[in-house]
Amino acid sequence: MRTAFYVSDGTAITAEVFGHALLTMFPAEFAHVTIPFVENPDLALQVKNRINDCYKTTGLKPLVFHTFVDEGLRQLISDSDGVCYDFLNTLVEPVQKELGMAPVPKTHRTHSMHEKTYDFRIDAVNYALANDDGANMKNFSHADIILVGVSRSGKTPTSLYLALQYGIKAANYPFVEEDMAKLRLPAELAAHKAKLFGLTITAERLSQIRQQRRPNSRYASVHQCALELKEVEQLYLKEQIPFINSTQLSIEEISAKIISRTGLKRQKY
Amino acid sequence: MRTAFYVSDGTAITAEVFGHALLTMFPAEFAHVTIPFVENPDLALQVKNRINDCYKTTGLKPLVFHTFVDEGLRQLISDSDGVCYDFLNTLVEPVQKELGMAPVPKTHRTHSMHEKTYDFRIDAVNYALANDDGANMKNFSHADIILVGVSRSGKTPTSLYLALQYGIKAANYPFVEEDMAKLRLPAELAAHKAKLFGLTITAERLSQIRQQRRPNSRYASVHQCALELKEVEQLYLKEQIPFINSTQLSIEEISAKIISRTGLKRQKY
Repeated sequence: MRTAFYVSDGTAITAEVFGHALLTMFPAEFAHVTIPFVENPDLALQVKNRINDCYKTTGLKPLVFHTFVDEGLRQLISDSDGVCYDFLNTLVEPVQKELGMAPVPKTHRTHSMHEKTYDFRIDAVNYALANDDGANMKNFSHADIILVGVSRSGKTPTSLYLALQYGIKAANYPFVEEDMAKLRLPAELAAHKAKLFGLTITAERLSQIRQQRRPNSRYASVHQCALELKEVEQLYLKEQIPFINSTQLSIEEISAKIISRTGLKRQKY
Repeated sequence: MRTAFYVSDGTAITAEVFGHALLTMFPAEFAHVTIPFVENPDLALQVKNRINDCYKTTGLKPLVFHTFVDEGLRQLISDSDGVCYDFLNTLVEPVQKELGMAPVPKTHRTHSMHEKTYDFRIDAVNYALANDDGANMKNFSHADIILVGVSRSGKTPTSLYLALQYGIKAANYPFVEEDMAKLRLPAELAAHKAKLFGLTITAERLSQIRQQRRPNSRYASVHQCALELKEVEQLYLKEQIPFINSTQLSIEEISAKIISRTGLKRQKY
């Protein structure tokens, strides 16, 4: 099996995202090794030796995805026996030409707390935690968005992802039987109707998820799930609440669709 | 101001991470526009027109970072008036040559729920939420890692990030006065000592963070913060618990350092 190294003088997250996107295009398995914070020549030499050892041991040249700001460190890694993909540098020149300005080398530029939006993201995480699952409905006025749906339809992980990744303050509220039976929004939600976004899901998938929580319960039965979902979907239509079906979607996909549909302002790019 | 477009037939997260890493190298501000799920020619034409309109309105060619699997859609965007950076395709050919195999086009390859590690990540988020802040200490046997530290030292957002991003089950425990005064681990932690990882922070920064929660309290005073931090750091040393100082670190950086120091197995690359 071929080994892929992701190496950087920062978190190596950019190298990972890029290398992963590239390698998943090929029908092969890889062994993955991430080495972040390679911040001095000693560490870079250790990494170079590790790459060379990997080549000696496996007989296959490792693929090395790296993002170094420091030219000397970059050169040390590029001199290894791995096949190096320096994708940032590959594209710096054309962008430089287009913008008519030179790049300014600086480490920890991305994924650092010095990004100006970092505090928004931490505040948003604290907000999402404090306003999960219908807690503190009086705080809804501070929400950027309020996700609604039946229990276990994906509201909590999506709220946390929106907060952590984009600094969006997402509250969430699980409809209870009374809301659904009466096809009525509770007053606290009705007061912030423009912020509501609904999630739905198929009854079969919801039942699977609920089974893990309370096996063989009425709560987890396909019948009960179907009933609740039918009612909330009617409520969404009646109240003109935008909604998406999350059955086949990851939290990244749900979040991207919500932002795209609502035009929510993100605190991070 | 120059506009940067991030366009994809998927979430556009890869295009964003890459474009962001590239653009932050330049001392300029950009307007950012992300357009995910451009899945058919009609949508691609709309995006092309939007790019062309932006050029007409601003007189500056937009920078377009795109990741399309579908060749026809990619071509439509490439034919726009924007300056297109097709970084995946730029590097597919050298990787193809090195691996000796052709890429297999397939949409939603990354950031989708069909990634085999997706369920681990959702389970880990549920675990982190249920085991936040010392809740359910009997569940520590299921933890991959247990973050410890004083109140507000960064344990909760780090636990959530480890879970969401990497599928790592992270519990966390805030030391209480009794633990610190006696320089002693509670029995539930002592039983899982190999899983403990400590966070610390400067007293000044901790005091700032606590001020937001309880202004002008003893809890938030620099004196009290310094006292608690001194005690937990002594405890870390006495019990040989690895720890890092989070004062200057983002949650991405803390997480990368923890994974790198502990060798924790990640469920996602």
